[in-house]
Amino acid sequence: MSSIRDVAREAGVSVATVSRALSSPEKVSPASLAKVQTAIDKVGYSPNMLARNFRSARSYTIVVLVPDITNPFYSQVIRSIEDRAQQKGYAVLLGDTRRGEAEREQEYVRRVETRLADGIIQLRPHSEKQGHTIPNSVACVHAAGCELTYGPSIRIDNRGASKNMVDYLISLGHKRIGVISGLKDNPHAIDRMAGYKESLAEAGLPFEKELVAEGDFTMWSGLNCAHQFCNLANPPTAIFCMNDEMAIGAIQTLKSQGFRVPEDISVTGFDDIPYARYCDPALTTIAQPTEEMGKMAMDMLLRVINSEPLAQRESVLPSEFIIRKSTGPAKQRG
Amino acid sequence: MSSIRDVAREAGVSVATVSRALSSPEKVSPASLAKVQTAIDKVGYSPNMLARNFRSARSYTIVVLVPDITNPFYSQVIRSIEDRAQQKGYAVLLGDTRRGEAEREQEYVRRVETRLADGIIQLRPHSEKQGHTIPNSVACVHAAGCELTYGPSIRIDNRGASKNMVDYLISLGHKRIGVISGLKDNPHAIDRMAGYKESLAEAGLPFEKELVAEGDFTMWSGLNCAHQFCNLANPPTAIFCMNDEMAIGAIQTLKSQGFRVPEDISVTGFDDIPYARYCDPALTTIAQPTEEMGKMAMDMLLRVINSEPLAQRESVLPSEFIIRKSTGPAKQRG
Repeated sequence: MSSIRDVAREAGVSVATVSRALSSPEKVSPASLAKVQTAIDKVGYSPNMLARNFRSARSYTIVVLVPDITNPFYSQVIRSIEDRAQQKGYAVLLGDTRRGEAEREQEYVRRVETRLADGIIQLRPHSEKQGHTIPNSVACVHAAGCELTYGPSIRIDNRGASKNMVDYLISLGHKRIGVISGLKDNPHAIDRMAGYKESLAEAGLPFEKELVAEGDFTMWSGLNCAHQFCNLANPPTAIFCMNDEMAIGAIQTLKSQGFRVPEDISVTGFDDIPYARYCDPALTTIAQPTEEMGKMAMDMLLRVINSEPLAQRESVLPSEFIIRKSTGPAKQRG
Repeated sequence: MSSIRDVAREAGVSVATVSRALSSPEKVSPASLAKVQTAIDKVGYSPNMLARNFRSARSYTIVVLVPDITNPFYSQVIRSIEDRAQQKGYAVLLGDTRRGEAEREQEYVRRVETRLADGIIQLRPHSEKQGHTIPNSVACVHAAGCELTYGPSIRIDNRGASKNMVDYLISLGHKRIGVISGLKDNPHAIDRMAGYKESLAEAGLPFEKELVAEGDFTMWSGLNCAHQFCNLANPPTAIFCMNDEMAIGAIQTLKSQGFRVPEDISVTGFDDIPYARYCDPALTTIAQPTEEMGKMAMDMLLRVINSEPLAQRESVLPSEFIIRKSTGPAKQRG
């Protein structure tokens, strides 16, 4: 195994210069840097990065906390974060918190407190009404935030996008619009429910409890919630689902119960995961800018880590309204 | 911020004992360990783990190399790896190599060589015919291996599972069976193609080039490949797709071209991703044991890192044959 001395000899510079080139390259002339780099390649030297990072008190590592990495919305944001992190010389530690288990999150918070990571990107939406789970001393950015997120965040306007979707259903003549929500204390579910209610209120339609079913963002829960609607004496003519997975599950139930989508019941999703355009019928949904969310969250976190000022504490990105085949005019029922 | 001295004072032991408790707890009496632990909690001390790991020459971090984290098969294996790693006190660095880009893989290999990580779990299948990309000096285990994987690996019998699937289609009376493969140099595609050919040969059916379409494991490619079959003078009565995504894409094309699935054409998948049971019709497929693959790969990697002997270099896990609605008897065509 070659040493730093071998590199210095090969490069014709001092050991101190090689060391400086590795720890503070900005303090070394470009000519010396080039010599050192060539020598490192030639002698096959692997600097002990762990030792180097120890000296610089940076781990060049960030943690991504995700409630469920198998959810395609999150895995797309993570891919974008990883891509940007790599461009910036950072590695990404994956913290799957299994739907936000507090103990698991705390283990990752400790990694930052103990300097094994420099900061956190939190994908679980978190409202300040729920209290803090991540201490102020830990650099943290929310990449899929909600209204009243504590700390810096990137998000879309979940309430506004949901209102637009329900407005659209109302414009198609729907008056009984069911909603399949996420768990009711989930901040995304809270924001999207607010949009649903605003739209109904604006159109003068009543909010009816029997038209609300609580899911948990999984396909399985969408499947079950749709059964609840099928069993009503007067089923809804449209269902607003708070994510695409629940819409996909709901469509399966509706078909199995003899309802045609959209002729008998329209169904809408949220997120525009890759399967949204491949299910039958293809889903009308809201596309979230996952690529941009990941990239901007990483850039924002680096500014927090480096104690640079943020242009704004919160960035609200545009979402896209996508009309496909799962929605149509309201059916007139006897 | 409290220091190691505060901990020692609180615990009533020497600084050296606290230090030993942190770096080599096995050398400290249980009574002293308990005192130190209590004191750490009380004074709120965060040991500088980076420094500690530097001393122990372990990073307690592994890298997972994945061709595409948004592929649900891979994200399920990763969730299981992360779960097991956390139980064992290890963190998981995510290396999305964008379908195996060599340069990106090498950056992560260097992390192990420079001791920022202790080993690698490789999710991209790799056959030794392709040469090595990861040096022998780097601890590495393959979690979704293929035949002739170089190095320790966990895998299913891709060839045997594919042969079973095609045997099943033949038993339903199908004689013209199309195949939508992955990229033809992908080791999973090679193994699964071998199973397809074995099944045809055993049944005395010819291997016909016009019945082979090369996809790349994405839904989009499945959609395109199915068009190729629809345009044949004599289309196949069944299509064996090498993963579920391509099957989902193919079904969309078939429906749009007026073919009923399975009445006109049967379609089969591979992997059993969560969407397989929610698409219409639900997919007949091969379930891979993602949970077990991730867990076993992590355990195997820890043995390699710790230089412990492996019971076997390769573990071939059972897969599950799942018959759903996308397959049926061959249609007799004029």
